[in-house]
Amino acid sequence: MYYDDLNVGDSASFEKTITETDVYGFAGITGDFNPAHINQRYAEGTKFGTRIAHGMLSGSLFSTIFGTELPGKGTIYLSQTLSFVAPVLIGDTVKATVRVSEKLGKGRVRFDCTAAKQDGTVVVQGEALLLPPRP
Amino acid sequence: MYYDDLNVGDSASFEKTITETDVYGFAGITGDFNPAHINQRYAEGTKFGTRIAHGMLSGSLFSTIFGTELPGKGTIYLSQTLSFVAPVLIGDTVKATVRVSEKLGKGRVRFDCTAAKQDGTVVVQGEALLLPPRP
Amino acid sequence: MYYDDLNVGDSASFEKTITETDVYGFAGITGDFNPAHINQRYAEGTKFGTRIAHGMLSGSLFSTIFGTELPGKGTIYLSQTLSFVAPVLIGDTVKATVRVSEKLGKGRVRFDCTAAKQDGTVVVQGEALLLPPRP
Amino acid sequence: MYYDDLNVGDSASFEKTITETDVYGFAGITGDFNPAHINQRYAEGTKFGTRIAHGMLSGSLFSTIFGTELPGKGTIYLSQTLSFVAPVLIGDTVKATVRVSEKLGKGRVRFDCTAAKQDGTVVVQGEALLLPPRP
Repeated sequence: MYYDDLNVGDSASFEKTITETDVYGFAGITGDFNPAHINQRYAEGTKFGTRIAHGMLSGSLFSTIFGTELPGKGTIYLSQTLSFVAPVLIGDTVKATVRVSEKLGKGRVRFDCTAAKQDGTVVVQGEALLLPPRP
Repeated sequence: MYYDDLNVGDSASFEKTITETDVYGFAGITGDFNPAHINQRYAEGTKFGTRIAHGMLSGSLFSTIFGTELPGKGTIYLSQTLSFVAPVLIGDTVKATVRVSEKLGKGRVRFDCTAAKQDGTVVVQGEALLLPPRP
Repeated sequence: MYYDDLNVGDSASFEKTITETDVYGFAGITGDFNPAHINQRYAEGTKFGTRIAHGMLSGSLFSTIFGTELPGKGTIYLSQTLSFVAPVLIGDTVKATVRVSEKLGKGRVRFDCTAAKQDGTVVVQGEALLLPPRP
Repeated sequence: MYYDDLNVGDSASFEKTITETDVYGFAGITGDFNPAHINQRYAEGTKFGTRIAHGMLSGSLFSTIFGTELPGKGTIYLSQTLSFVAPVLIGDTVKATVRVSEKLGKGRVRFDCTAAKQDGTVVVQGEALLLPPRP
C-alpha cells in the first residue's frame, strides 16, 4: 500500500503462540542468553516463576506486519519505540496490532503498536515511523 | 551490577557477523518474510542491491548486552527506542554498544545505544531505560 | 476466501531464495540426510555438481500460499500431486504459483501448482485439491 | 539398491515424534504461518482443538526413506502424490512406510506410501515414482 492508500485508523494484526523453540532460537541468533530466558532453574527463582520470552521478540512482531501486510513490501522502517509493559511466558499467544495514527507528510506515516496476550494483558506498546513504498 | 555500581559513561559492547542463517532464523521466528530479507532476486531490484537483515535483529543486540553483561542478569528492561539509520547486509559485522547516559533515580538508568558496521557506519541508534537488579 | 469468492484463473505466488540454512533445517526436521542434500563432497560427484534442495521443500511452498493467502486460513488441504521436473540448487530463488483451475462442487476447488527458478525453469509441477473455509 | 535388486512388496519405514520444534521449524523454512500450525489460541477454535502439523511435513517423511534407505542415495525422485486423510497433532508419532508396488520398466519403480499415527490412524496416503540408482 502506498502513502495515499493509508488512512488514520487502518490496522492489521499478526498472532503467534510463543514457544520454547522461538525463545531458544531468538537467544541463539541474538546471543541474549539472559538466564531469565533460557535457564528454567534460575527463572523459577524470579518473580515470574518461569522462563519469559525476550521483550524484543514480541517487539519484532510489528515489523512482521509492516513488511508483509500493512503497508507491505517496499516499506522503509525509520524508527520504533517499545515499552515492555508485562512479561510474555513461554506458551503465551501474542497478538501484535498496528494502527495508522498520523500521516505526517513527506511520505511518512506514524503507527500505534500494541501487543497483547490471550487474556488481553498488554505486553508491549510503542510507536513506529514508516515510509510506505512509492507508486 | 547494581544501580549504585553504575556510572555515567560506563559502556559495553557485543559484536557479531550477521549471517544468512541469522536472517533466515529471524524470519522463521517472527514470521517476517518481507522479500527484502529472504528473496535475493527481489532484493537485487531494491536500492540496497541484495538481501538486508531485519532492523529489529540488529536492534535486539542491545538487549543481549543488558541481559548478560551491563547491568547483567536480573535487569528489568523498561523501554527501548530505535532509529534504523542504515541497512545491514548479510555478511556485515555489527557492533552494538551501550553506554550509561543518566541515572534517573528510583533505580532507573538511561543508556545510549549505538550499533555500527565494520566500516564505522552507524546502523541503529536509540535509548533504553532499565531497572538494574537490586542487591 | 470462501468457495463462492474463488474464480477459475485466480492466482497467487510466494517467492524465496532457498539457502543452505533452509536445506539443513529441512534435513533436520524430516531426517532426509540424503548426501545429495547435505554432503558437498558427494554432491560434486553427481550430475548436478553441487548440493540440491529437497524436492519436497519446494513442493511445500504451495501449502504456504494455500494456508496464508489463497484461499487462506481455515482451508482444508485434501491432496497434492508433485512432479519433480528439475533440481533446485542452494542459492536458487524459487517462485511458487497456484491458480484455481476448476471448481468441483461440494466446496472443493482444484488448483494448478507450478514452481519455477529465477531463470524460468520449472522445477515442480502438480495439482492440489482444497476445501476453502466456509462462511 | 538398484532396479534389479528391488522386488514388489519390499518395504521400509521411518518413524518420528512430531514436536512443536519441528512444526515451528517447518513454518520458518516454508513461510507457512497458517495459524492452525503456530497459533494455539486460534487452533483451539478449530475442529481439531489444538495446533496441527503441516501435512507436507508428514508427507516429506517418504522422501527421507527414499533418499537414505530404500532405494537409498542416488535415487531420482520423479513424482509424489499425497492425500491428507487425518491431522497430525503436535506430539503425535508418525510412522511413514513405503512399499514397492510395481516395476515399470525403463528403470522406474512405483511405491505405495502410507503414514500412520501411534494409534494406527492413517494420516497421509499416496504413491511415488522413482528412478533407483544404476550400477
